Amino acid sequence: MATRSALERSRSALHLRLLAAQRRLVTKQQSAVIVIGGNDRLAASELANQLTEWFDSRTVRICAPTAHAHPKHPFLWPYWQDMPAKGRLTIVVGDWLTRTAVQAAHDELSGDALRVRLKSLRTFEELLAADGTSVVKIWLETSEKTLRKRLREAEDTDAEGWVVSPEDLLLAKHGNLSLCRALRSQGSGKNLPWKVVMGGTETKHRDLSAGLVIAAQMGQVSRRRPAIAVKKPSGRPRGLLESATAHPALDKKGYSQQMAKLQARLGRLSRLAAQKGLSTVVVLEGPDAAGKGGAIRRLCGQLDAAHYQVFPTPAPTPEEKARHYLWRFWNKVPAPGHLAVFDRSWFGRVMVERVEGFAKDAEWARAYAEINDFEARLAETGMVVLKLWINISKEEQLRRFQAREISPHKRHKMTKEDYRNRKKWDDNLRAAEDMIARTDTPHAPWVVVSGDDKRYARVAALKAVCRALSDRLD
Amino acid sequence: MATRSALERSRSALHLRLLAAQRRLVTKQQSAVIVIGGNDRLAASELANQLTEWFDSRTVRICAPTAHAHPKHPFLWPYWQDMPAKGRLTIVVGDWLTRTAVQAAHDELSGDALRVRLKSLRTFEELLAADGTSVVKIWLETSEKTLRKRLREAEDTDAEGWVVSPEDLLLAKHGNLSLCRALRSQGSGKNLPWKVVMGGTETKHRDLSAGLVIAAQMGQVSRRRPAIAVKKPSGRPRGLLESATAHPALDKKGYSQQMAKLQARLGRLSRLAAQKGLSTVVVLEGPDAAGKGGAIRRLCGQLDAAHYQVFPTPAPTPEEKARHYLWRFWNKVPAPGHLAVFDRSWFGRVMVERVEGFAKDAEWARAYAEINDFEARLAETGMVVLKLWINISKEEQLRRFQAREISPHKRHKMTKEDYRNRKKWDDNLRAAEDMIARTDTPHAPWVVVSGDDKRYARVAALKAVCRALSDRLD
Repeated sequence: MATRSALERSRSALHLRLLAAQRRLVTKQQSAVIVIGGNDRLAASELANQLTEWFDSRTVRICAPTAHAHPKHPFLWPYWQDMPAKGRLTIVVGDWLTRTAVQAAHDELSGDALRVRLKSLRTFEELLAADGTSVVKIWLETSEKTLRKRLREAEDTDAEGWVVSPEDLLLAKHGNLSLCRALRSQGSGKNLPWKVVMGGTETKHRDLSAGLVIAAQMGQVSRRRPAIAVKKPSGRPRGLLESATAHPALDKKGYSQQMAKLQARLGRLSRLAAQKGLSTVVVLEGPDAAGKGGAIRRLCGQLDAAHYQVFPTPAPTPEEKARHYLWRFWNKVPAPGHLAVFDRSWFGRVMVERVEGFAKDAEWARAYAEINDFEARLAETGMVVLKLWINISKEEQLRRFQAREISPHKRHKMTKEDYRNRKKWDDNLRAAEDMIARTDTPHAPWVVVSGDDKRYARVAALKAVCRALSDRLD
Repeated sequence: MATRSALERSRSALHLRLLAAQRRLVTKQQSAVIVIGGNDRLAASELANQLTEWFDSRTVRICAPTAHAHPKHPFLWPYWQDMPAKGRLTIVVGDWLTRTAVQAAHDELSGDALRVRLKSLRTFEELLAADGTSVVKIWLETSEKTLRKRLREAEDTDAEGWVVSPEDLLLAKHGNLSLCRALRSQGSGKNLPWKVVMGGTETKHRDLSAGLVIAAQMGQVSRRRPAIAVKKPSGRPRGLLESATAHPALDKKGYSQQMAKLQARLGRLSRLAAQKGLSTVVVLEGPDAAGKGGAIRRLCGQLDAAHYQVFPTPAPTPEEKARHYLWRFWNKVPAPGHLAVFDRSWFGRVMVERVEGFAKDAEWARAYAEINDFEARLAETGMVVLKLWINISKEEQLRRFQAREISPHKRHKMTKEDYRNRKKWDDNLRAAEDMIARTDTPHAPWVVVSGDDKRYARVAALKAVCRALSDRLD
């Protein structure tokens, strides 16, 4: 072998360090996200390619959303799709801050909207870090002069090279360099700063510099201590829900008439929503046997099967368990014009996971904010987000359990767990009160439906959904 | 309880039968697809809703692609996405035959294209059945007069009902009734006929009739005996590949120059493909240590990270194992304009699964036709499909294994299995010969690349991909 230069020796040593860091991810079952941003798109792409060459590609995924992909989906949606499972690595090119900077430089994003975006980026990064994901952020910065030269050269290569677009130079302009600096600091989670690496023409040096940062930081997690100590909701239920169970029963005839009318109304609204591209998320929560399934079937009974989807929420699969608990719900965000109905949902984190101790105190305590943020991201795309708590009394639940056991049509709904869960009635009720108090927001409100009379509850659920849709459509 | 009518009693009994049939799916770990087609879209939607009410919704999924969804994806793509895992049930509304009939009635599909489509539907249904999936097909047929009346009524309900479109009546027209009949028979897999149920206004009777068919057929599998006995490829390798390993080595300088030129060329072609929406699938297969990974890194080394995705093919996850082996690859079909590179692929079915006995003889033997059909479905959307076999000699493989073991940069690539697999060299070679002979098609050709010289192999792989793309783009 010929004598290698100092550069080659350093790159070779770095290669080994990166492989070792990647092996540690696997053994420690930790996930990592490497974000490559900056004003030099060509350099970002080259660095991503170099990294996939250095890493063992079997556990690496590239996430590279194009600038205008998925305009109707929440901004963070493409990143959520590709979040790594434990032991794995995602490299992001076309990252959230660079795309935000391009929009800001184009004046497509400013003022409050920009501030909300930057906050959402901070929250997102902190959420990943809090979940134990290692987040490494490289900002490739190239001066306008160098970038211009570099792009021209790339364009020239065999007359078949890069096609320079005006956008390629946008962020390298003098004024935008300081814009980017400001956005980098305002759009970064606590203890998750961008590490600036010079872009430019010395590609091997550049990739070495970036790689050294990655080797040093990958595997480190900047778990942020909450500024205020987690206030654990505690004590006995405050009785907020206990009173809201009964309602004068609806007679069968009045029920049938109202139901037919409401279903036709929701049918019309959902067709209109499909036409206009208005998406809707409806969540149903409530104790076992509250009547969630029955309410959902009435809700969807007259809808066009092409316009809606019902998602049950069983125990998470291994793929789901290996990621942030919100991942599987981000994957089910409805397409434009669609209605997604969740039979139980992300609120499991602050209900069953809290009550059964599946989530640690700090985990479920921070989930309220995470959930509010998730729903805010959906709502800001214009989506209708509505949460229904169907509330029944402990006595009514027992009656229904007993009726289920003797009904051949309903026996399949009973599991061994149902009576066991019932013993934790008070804990569940307290958790529900906390959940509703902490996640009832203007953009994603809770509606509590008295559930002891099934007919009343179904009518009330349908009415609530109709109202939410017609507020937006009429 | 008041006395129930005979109809209600029958429906209640059917409800129990359906729940029992669904439980059997779970205990027997069998999957089922219920297809609801016909000329009465309103009835299909109502029936689907009624079925989700009868079934335990936790293991049911609705697949309802809209008529013009995913125009750039293969026609069968949305159905593949929603195929049920073992123990689960998918209800299809907006099915493959109804959508084909609408296109034929509109004259958007005729002649050869229609024949190819109908053949692809037969093949698809037979593939599901061969895999043990129970396929139940209900065709809801309503006369034009009844349908017109019914749609008018639906339209009138509280002035908020169904909006009748010209399309809603299209298939109910007299001439199209016989068109549908012909398509139903030509587009159905062997022993997988459509069961015609009268649509119309008597919704409770209609759903009862359809439900009875489903209860009777669900869980039955019509595994088709191959007309010709499976001809097992057997015997020793025929030496077709043994000779194609060596090639005069490329010197380092010539290699670097050629590589730079080819990478720039592929970069240009891939940008052009992205612009024009031309998608590409490249598959790399070959013995362990053939240099697939290295070839892929050179292939993608100068591409824009937003334009391509590399998919390794590890052992299937539980979710993947519970479905047809092609499912996980249908899920990775590239979006318009993208390049998907597969590091090993669906050919595992006729390579490792055959050689190791993971697939039964009948399973891998029918896989050649299934794979050809899958690739034909991709190619007919205009996609470039190219398969590269990188071929090395047994001696070269040993040299590389030994080099890997002492190289700290490559040690991670070695697994315990590698030497074990090497013992089956002849079996693997024979399987590769059969695979190439049986799946080399005009729309998805194999290119055999001599791999003993790595530089030559990388250049040849890049050239082959460039050629395939430029044939379509230039």
